[in-house]
Amino acid sequence: MIVDGKNYKSIWCLKKKVFIIDQTKLPFQFKIIELKTLDDYCDAIFNMQVRGAPLIGVTAAFGIANSTKNDPSDNNITFSYEKLLSTRPTAVNLQWALDRMKGELLKVKPSDRLDLAYNLADIISKNDVSACESIGNHGAKLIESLFKKKKRVINILTHCNAGWLAAVNWGTALAPIYKAKRKKIPIHVWVDETRPRNQGALLTAWELKKEKIPYTIIVDNAGGHLMQEKKVDLCIVGSDRTALNGDVCNKIGTYLKALSAYDNSVPFYVALPSSTIDRSLKKGLGNIKIEERNGDELSFVNAIMGNKVKKNLIFFKNANVSNPAFDVTPAKFVTRLITEFGICKANTSEILKHIKL
Amino acid sequence: MIVDGKNYKSIWCLKKKVFIIDQTKLPFQFKIIELKTLDDYCDAIFNMQVRGAPLIGVTAAFGIANSTKNDPSDNNITFSYEKLLSTRPTAVNLQWALDRMKGELLKVKPSDRLDLAYNLADIISKNDVSACESIGNHGAKLIESLFKKKKRVINILTHCNAGWLAAVNWGTALAPIYKAKRKKIPIHVWVDETRPRNQGALLTAWELKKEKIPYTIIVDNAGGHLMQEKKVDLCIVGSDRTALNGDVCNKIGTYLKALSAYDNSVPFYVALPSSTIDRSLKKGLGNIKIEERNGDELSFVNAIMGNKVKKNLIFFKNANVSNPAFDVTPAKFVTRLITEFGICKANTSEILKHIKL
Repeated sequence: MIVDGKNYKSIWCLKKKVFIIDQTKLPFQFKIIELKTLDDYCDAIFNMQVRGAPLIGVTAAFGIANSTKNDPSDNNITFSYEKLLSTRPTAVNLQWALDRMKGELLKVKPSDRLDLAYNLADIISKNDVSACESIGNHGAKLIESLFKKKKRVINILTHCNAGWLAAVNWGTALAPIYKAKRKKIPIHVWVDETRPRNQGALLTAWELKKEKIPYTIIVDNAGGHLMQEKKVDLCIVGSDRTALNGDVCNKIGTYLKALSAYDNSVPFYVALPSSTIDRSLKKGLGNIKIEERNGDELSFVNAIMGNKVKKNLIFFKNANVSNPAFDVTPAKFVTRLITEFGICKANTSEILKHIKL
Repeated sequence: MIVDGKNYKSIWCLKKKVFIIDQTKLPFQFKIIELKTLDDYCDAIFNMQVRGAPLIGVTAAFGIANSTKNDPSDNNITFSYEKLLSTRPTAVNLQWALDRMKGELLKVKPSDRLDLAYNLADIISKNDVSACESIGNHGAKLIESLFKKKKRVINILTHCNAGWLAAVNWGTALAPIYKAKRKKIPIHVWVDETRPRNQGALLTAWELKKEKIPYTIIVDNAGGHLMQEKKVDLCIVGSDRTALNGDVCNKIGTYLKALSAYDNSVPFYVALPSSTIDRSLKKGLGNIKIEERNGDELSFVNAIMGNKVKKNLIFFKNANVSNPAFDVTPAKFVTRLITEFGICKANTSEILKHIKL
């Protein structure tokens, strides 16, 4: 996607060197870093320099590839697999990409693993881009048909960041918006701030601004009121893990927006590549380990002081805090899923028919 | 209520001098200021040095009293009335207290107004304290019966600050918690951060800490998830304006918590003095002017730097923001109202029977 006239992806590989945009610095600094060691990869995922279900899957794939550089043994691949898998428990793409890498690599002899690993990671990355682009095309048709009916700006609410920064390119929830923009459909996006890490205000608003799409940042509390006031035509969010019954695990707070969309008859769409569907999970609610992150993510916030970005305490010292990172939206509140294969209802039989398992 | 061993109210009058705790400085500084001019009163309400429906009503009453000091004429009282009324449009207590002051004062001759005005404001203040204490007693019984059933710590979720800082003493939503604490009922409070002004994290957590009641601050996004996980036994919130049909206008985000309480069968109580019921309003949803506040409340946040508190930019410069301050929770999501008269269902006939109109 475009940043100041130049095309970027959120992760890219050049001659077996892997680069990412450090998302903890955005939007204040646009900093590119190279991931060189297994610890670099693990830290980048754990500390959310890269985040978003599709992107952490691709990053982990390159992490495994990186491990074959010095020691392509079974032991080292398994060690790297376990270490990368432990960085974040909720998004299923991480496990999905790691399983795929390990499975393929262990089939061939160690001396053949280096090139194969980078090729595989590259394929996972390219497949993610094309899946997201397809999601964009399918979702844009939805927005287009709404525009043909309403004949005015279409107001879309999104939560967290499920833009190109959360994937490799295009994004999931934002892909339909980017594609609709290219079809000249007038759009305005309500951007949930998304506490505690403010990915909406910091990343989604920044992406939209760079793509010249009108947006307004609101606090996470405001979406229900805007829906009551008929100021939201549809919601589109991403997913970190989707159960076969259509329950959607996504950034904390997604469930509240789904409830208010339901109460106000606002369509609520979830956009996801099929790699986000957990084939082993029949039902989401109650069955997904919800990551509890450090409470400092609430108590401290990045602020601009002069030209520098510093972490500052915003609560009183040693306040008690809790920081669950995801919630589960029951399928009954999900209008439809948008995947690379098209649009489908959020129930087991439709999902099983829809995805080419 | 107690602050470091000393008893305080949020506003008090000594020999016609009125003092408040500057709530924009809490919890970082405990600063008492005197309100001396009409502008002081208006600024204190507009800038939220005092906030909370009951407290701004009482503050406005003293503001009118203050105006009778130099010029007790009809003109000056009407001028002060209009100016105070324009500070904040949503909470009905402001209008209610101002109407009462103006109505009574204009009945007597100007030279008799000064003492009457301070007496009246004092009565409004004392009535608020006793109403809040009654709310506390009625609500504590609810908590007590829940404790007798569950025989473990009772987990209560609240939004924004409806504690003693929002009233004169005791508070509305927190009054039942304070009263239950005095009955030795074990309680833990989930405190919504309450973006954008963070009254939960800054004021409610501070109040509870000072009263030695266990609490945990969570982001506004987290409450739904906690209810799904059965970690919330009941919700109690305040109200800025309540319609006769039981629709409740309160801090933005209240509606989302009510929806998730409803979806998870968690009782959702609204605590309010009857002065918060708008007798002229048959139905709340769609009929209440929702205050749109300055977007800087989102983009800037108070942070502690060394020993100083400074406002810092947390979004990129000139980001588009919108800041509606309240929302309306439809009565069907309200389990019961708690007022100084007891507990009643949130519908027109029950409310009309309940309040001594």
